[in-house]
Amino acid sequence: MDTAVIAGVGAERGLGAQLCLRFASLGMHVLVAGRTQEKLDVIVEKIAEAGGSAEAVQTDVTQEADIQALFSKVNGKLTLAIYNAGNNTPGAIQDMTADYFEASWRVACFGAFLFAREASRIMSEQGSGTILFTGASASLRGKANFGAFTAAKAGLRQMAQALAKECGPQGIHVAHVIVDGAINGERVAKRYPEYAARLQEDGINLEGIVDAYQYLFEQQNKAWSFELDLRTSTENW
Amino acid sequence: MDTAVIAGVGAERGLGAQLCLRFASLGMHVLVAGRTQEKLDVIVEKIAEAGGSAEAVQTDVTQEADIQALFSKVNGKLTLAIYNAGNNTPGAIQDMTADYFEASWRVACFGAFLFAREASRIMSEQGSGTILFTGASASLRGKANFGAFTAAKAGLRQMAQALAKECGPQGIHVAHVIVDGAINGERVAKRYPEYAARLQEDGINLEGIVDAYQYLFEQQNKAWSFELDLRTSTENW
Amino acid sequence: MDTAVIAGVGAERGLGAQLCLRFASLGMHVLVAGRTQEKLDVIVEKIAEAGGSAEAVQTDVTQEADIQALFSKVNGKLTLAIYNAGNNTPGAIQDMTADYFEASWRVACFGAFLFAREASRIMSEQGSGTILFTGASASLRGKANFGAFTAAKAGLRQMAQALAKECGPQGIHVAHVIVDGAINGERVAKRYPEYAARLQEDGINLEGIVDAYQYLFEQQNKAWSFELDLRTSTENW
Amino acid sequence: MDTAVIAGVGAERGLGAQLCLRFASLGMHVLVAGRTQEKLDVIVEKIAEAGGSAEAVQTDVTQEADIQALFSKVNGKLTLAIYNAGNNTPGAIQDMTADYFEASWRVACFGAFLFAREASRIMSEQGSGTILFTGASASLRGKANFGAFTAAKAGLRQMAQALAKECGPQGIHVAHVIVDGAINGERVAKRYPEYAARLQEDGINLEGIVDAYQYLFEQQNKAWSFELDLRTSTENW
Repeated sequence: MDTAVIAGVGAERGLGAQLCLRFASLGMHVLVAGRTQEKLDVIVEKIAEAGGSAEAVQTDVTQEADIQALFSKVNGKLTLAIYNAGNNTPGAIQDMTADYFEASWRVACFGAFLFAREASRIMSEQGSGTILFTGASASLRGKANFGAFTAAKAGLRQMAQALAKECGPQGIHVAHVIVDGAINGERVAKRYPEYAARLQEDGINLEGIVDAYQYLFEQQNKAWSFELDLRTSTENW
Repeated sequence: MDTAVIAGVGAERGLGAQLCLRFASLGMHVLVAGRTQEKLDVIVEKIAEAGGSAEAVQTDVTQEADIQALFSKVNGKLTLAIYNAGNNTPGAIQDMTADYFEASWRVACFGAFLFAREASRIMSEQGSGTILFTGASASLRGKANFGAFTAAKAGLRQMAQALAKECGPQGIHVAHVIVDGAINGERVAKRYPEYAARLQEDGINLEGIVDAYQYLFEQQNKAWSFELDLRTSTENW
Repeated sequence: MDTAVIAGVGAERGLGAQLCLRFASLGMHVLVAGRTQEKLDVIVEKIAEAGGSAEAVQTDVTQEADIQALFSKVNGKLTLAIYNAGNNTPGAIQDMTADYFEASWRVACFGAFLFAREASRIMSEQGSGTILFTGASASLRGKANFGAFTAAKAGLRQMAQALAKECGPQGIHVAHVIVDGAINGERVAKRYPEYAARLQEDGINLEGIVDAYQYLFEQQNKAWSFELDLRTSTENW
Repeated sequence: MDTAVIAGVGAERGLGAQLCLRFASLGMHVLVAGRTQEKLDVIVEKIAEAGGSAEAVQTDVTQEADIQALFSKVNGKLTLAIYNAGNNTPGAIQDMTADYFEASWRVACFGAFLFAREASRIMSEQGSGTILFTGASASLRGKANFGAFTAAKAGLRQMAQALAKECGPQGIHVAHVIVDGAINGERVAKRYPEYAARLQEDGINLEGIVDAYQYLFEQQNKAWSFELDLRTSTENW
């Protein structure tokens, strides 16, 4: 059975979870990877209820052994691998601890490298496969008080560019989705309830983001995108 | 009936013509705009044979009156407007005539402005609509011996960025497709037959490009892209 | 005597005029080119008073014959050519006349092409010379209500990139200065006196901009810049 | 005495060492920071011979304690801090160890963060100072077989952008120099003698690069650059 590995899965309302639900609904077996077993179980159960196939794999994406264990579970063809981990990490550089700056990079960039390496090794054997990464507006430009996040996301993006050029001739499609705007997920809802209420009305459309990943996955050979951006009609960019 | 206006339509094997065929097949009435009546007639006939609805409108996209006449033919809702005009115009700046430099801009950038203005005026009344532009790798960077083309395409791209930001709040989706690589169309086939033979094998997938326009047209509200790029897996970018 | 041709010269407080004063003070003969004879005369007189050498050449930069006449006045070596023409041209695309959009391009981009072609032809014979262009933040990104300006400035910038790559091997240095922020010149002072008062305090440093052109002109062989940006410490970019 | 801290100093023919010599010659006390005591001693001696003032500080830029110890040696005003560490780290992602990818980031990006934080804390107290970073063409775009290097350098560049925006209002000038092309230093000479011979003839001009740092350091208030690029006239970019 064709398999998708999706890392960076958390709460059901988040992008990672929604990607799992979508690709399972397309008939793929989904390895649902994230830090928190309970959250993964919710998604796997949802998929099962809908008649799909999935498996929770508790994974710390910053640990090489975890990433390798995750990909060792792939049975059959690895058609899709999505790396969606990476939290926004605000803060001024003068006030930032070294650990904070490093942790931001470990999740958003270093884990992406480990993930990309393992996925592309398998896909290179197959001669096919798609690897997708989640970016942000910070991937393109450094703004004040986002030094840690922008450094990590820029690193991810350009690593992905190198990967795309290395892997293209092997038949592997690598792409990067720039999500420009906050997703109205659980974390936002908890921490900033008023902001979440506004996002409910005006925020970016989660289902539309998932569509973009599906579109990239389904692109025909010889007409591959590396990058697309997504935002609401009123976002100031 | 929902109407699409598609400008920059030439030979049947080209992108403009294929876009007309696709959007007609989706049930829209297509205004097929280009310089050469005979070429337009071929496309309109093809669409009619397939049970679609289309109309040829001979148009010089660099003439304001022509562009205005084109949009005056819109009956019902203008759901889509695609500007695909603009030929590659190679040459070193030191050897270039002023007319050549200007003609490159008139087709690729000035015509796009006229087209965008008329389309967005109608769509602004409607409160909805999609405007798509065809870009190239030259849209992003100036290379030696492509000074005229890159100047025109860069102008188009950034005009489109401004337009996207002006029109988004009006409910109009504006996007720009970067086609990175030569399309194996009629012109290439005639002028560079050996190159065309190689493109046949290795060139960019025309149907895949058309898919991208359809995807952008169908994007859900509140998850709009401004830009995506397209190339073969072996393109050096 | 080494000659500098500087186009886009207006009021004494503007960038064009200050560039003339600086390069004349470095011992070059300056051809001072602009639309308004009276303004040019003021600069030439200032230069003469300071013991420098200069000559006013009334020039409509959008006219090929004018640009050719301007460069026909070069005697001796053409060591420097600066194209500084191009006014900000605000406005929404839906409300813009075709003439306005075109005029913006003629001054900022088409004139730059004519200027670049004539300058580089002479410098190519010499095997040396420097060509500098004035850009703006709009050169890099299209913002709402600046569609005409951004289209023209983006075209200029990427034309200059192509030119740099064509001319580098001929020994000609081409560079582009991004001035990010309004210069507190005469036009601003007249139209927006309150804004001008604020710029007086907080605005970009005109002498510092002129320093940048001098630095680029004086760069050693084999360590040439194509681009640098300039702004105040508080500009939001 | 005004002090400059320069990190990433190695062999005398390299950029770090030449920066030390230049800024010492301008009358600043230079803290010469690098991994290898012997190499630092050579530079300090050279500076002393020329009548300048300098001090070697053996520093592993990836160690927070080392960076803090380095800045604790600053006496008087810290007018300049340059971060020049970061080696090119070629290799395909599929063949790369996690340690290699991480080490590339530690030197080029993480160390830069530590350095930037300590420097900007001191300069923020002063209300003035300049922080300069060394970038590369890989800072802008990911190429095949440079995934580790491009990820690290992109991270550095965008961290520096955030820093520039945070520090500007505090009176601190932050800038990033893109050196596009190999410096004909000792490492190249040892590993690739033929390539070095060609660079001798055609390579980028080291003194010209140093000029750029000096220019950025000396820029007037309210006309600051964030970025400039440097290359030979024949570099293909």
